[in-house]
Amino acid sequence: MSKPYVVGIDIGGTNTVFGIVDARGVVLASSAIKTRKHATVEAYIDELHTELTKLLEVNDAIGKVHGIGIGAPNANYYTGTIEQGVNLPWPTPIPLARLVSEKFGIPVAITNDANAAAIGEMTYGAARGIKDFIMITLGTGVGSGIVINGQMVYGHDGFAGELGHVIVKRTNGRLCGCGRCGCLETYCSATGVARSAREFLEARPNEESLLRNIPTDEITSKDVYDAAVAGDKIAQDIFEFTGDILGAALADFVAFSAPQAFILFGGLAKSGDLLMRPLRNSLEKNLMPIWKGKVKVLISELKEADAAVLGASALGWEAKFMAPTPGMPASVPAPEAPLA
Amino acid sequence: MSKPYVVGIDIGGTNTVFGIVDARGVVLASSAIKTRKHATVEAYIDELHTELTKLLEVNDAIGKVHGIGIGAPNANYYTGTIEQGVNLPWPTPIPLARLVSEKFGIPVAITNDANAAAIGEMTYGAARGIKDFIMITLGTGVGSGIVINGQMVYGHDGFAGELGHVIVKRTNGRLCGCGRCGCLETYCSATGVARSAREFLEARPNEESLLRNIPTDEITSKDVYDAAVAGDKIAQDIFEFTGDILGAALADFVAFSAPQAFILFGGLAKSGDLLMRPLRNSLEKNLMPIWKGKVKVLISELKEADAAVLGASALGWEAKFMAPTPGMPASVPAPEAPLA
Repeated sequence: MSKPYVVGIDIGGTNTVFGIVDARGVVLASSAIKTRKHATVEAYIDELHTELTKLLEVNDAIGKVHGIGIGAPNANYYTGTIEQGVNLPWPTPIPLARLVSEKFGIPVAITNDANAAAIGEMTYGAARGIKDFIMITLGTGVGSGIVINGQMVYGHDGFAGELGHVIVKRTNGRLCGCGRCGCLETYCSATGVARSAREFLEARPNEESLLRNIPTDEITSKDVYDAAVAGDKIAQDIFEFTGDILGAALADFVAFSAPQAFILFGGLAKSGDLLMRPLRNSLEKNLMPIWKGKVKVLISELKEADAAVLGASALGWEAKFMAPTPGMPASVPAPEAPLA
Repeated sequence: MSKPYVVGIDIGGTNTVFGIVDARGVVLASSAIKTRKHATVEAYIDELHTELTKLLEVNDAIGKVHGIGIGAPNANYYTGTIEQGVNLPWPTPIPLARLVSEKFGIPVAITNDANAAAIGEMTYGAARGIKDFIMITLGTGVGSGIVINGQMVYGHDGFAGELGHVIVKRTNGRLCGCGRCGCLETYCSATGVARSAREFLEARPNEESLLRNIPTDEITSKDVYDAAVAGDKIAQDIFEFTGDILGAALADFVAFSAPQAFILFGGLAKSGDLLMRPLRNSLEKNLMPIWKGKVKVLISELKEADAAVLGASALGWEAKFMAPTPGMPASVPAPEAPLA
């Protein structure tokens, strides 16, 4: 293979992690820059270019990169742009795929971070050989990547798979960052668990809890986990509550695409039986009879540090040069530093 | 084209309708038999064979049928069988595709009735040219057929698209035929509307209503429609209630697959603005901001009499001879009356 590598880039609100990956999914080398240091996206891409070029040089990978895959919040696979409503310091939409592709002279494909994780899991992780699955990322929010018949679901507009925003509580639901109330992610994300802690402590004022040693506003899902492991009843009940809601939601998702498995990813997914037992119980209870006992709930097999880069990189194998953005010159400017 | 026709068969609980269809979607001729007349499925298929052969002879179509498509409740596209839980008088699973294929010597493909309707709509109806849509059938129950990127979604096991059974009311939901409570179809099917009528009449005992002229147990969704058109406030409120629930459910489905359109089919879909106004209002209110104003709700363009046969027939173009059922002879017996 003349170009045996791909590059994966994971753009988070704080850090941008990137790595060189081979066809077997080995991360040869990786590095990171701060996402928010630059006033313009062009200056940010300049630094990314400088640092990635260094990494490629050190690893003798110049000219050997088949494509670049990028996972980023609100990234649209079809248009190659990052759309509005995202926690980045630059005006949207950002034509990211075109900007990066022009800078490096390498084809670029982008997708949102949860989809990138699903692609990584399908290519290198727990979903190898599974053609129908749904990736659920339990982080600050709840994200999802849906794979049907081996194909990533992008939907009509590239934004399919916003399962963190199905409504799980139709009356008096918690206010969500999306402006609506009762979204799944207001309950089953890391921040959702922290909100539950505040609600539970307030609702059970006479009950002792290790969580009362922490200022209410500072309680994290990790604190709730630690307390639950230490035997704290309120903390354990919070996991029960969270698993119960998530399991019922997953049962509805089964009615949609009849997946063989769910794959959970992110900090909360590492809570072990504390989350998985109530989750699996609730899933089974809420499934239609035809699916009872037939849907697996798996935990991601990818190391968290590698997963985002691996997932994004897998997209690099299918990257193509983008068609020019309407209103932009049809010819792609010569890349400043051709690497490919 | 040496075999210019397909045959569509729609197996309902009462009637089995079948027709000969050409490549443009014209139903050349159709006929029907009673589904429940026979003690065995073999005897039923014998009659179907006799009557369909007559129809083919009269229309000079013997030897000109490319494939047979069948829409039937709980029919599994992958296995070619009708699975348990279905209102038919024969023991399940029924290896329908194999039985019919062997009888006629023509390849047969089967799918459930809602999927057949979606395929018909995509091939000949309101969904022509739309690659991402969800068909919602509002009949005795609520069925659905999901199309993503031009492909019918069957899921891991062939049973994807049971959107009538997502839970829309998690506390005190109505008991559903599936054994669970709060399913969409207990509210938004024709029978759901009739249930709403009984609930509304009981909850508002001092309010006059045209519906009080009908014995409570005999009220149908058509009665509610007629009363609402005549200005009956309770009947109008029932449509408001129904549209509100359906619109909120559709908004959640958008978060899954980001379809360009929903296509409504079946008796209730003909209720006009009575249903569509509250439905569209609720959909818009419940959509995430990125989708507001962007998702169409269309009404099926297929004549109800033709739709099932057309939809099933479209599947006939892709029908292949089934692999032998495990434990059955590997060679397909010579068809009794070769037609193809």
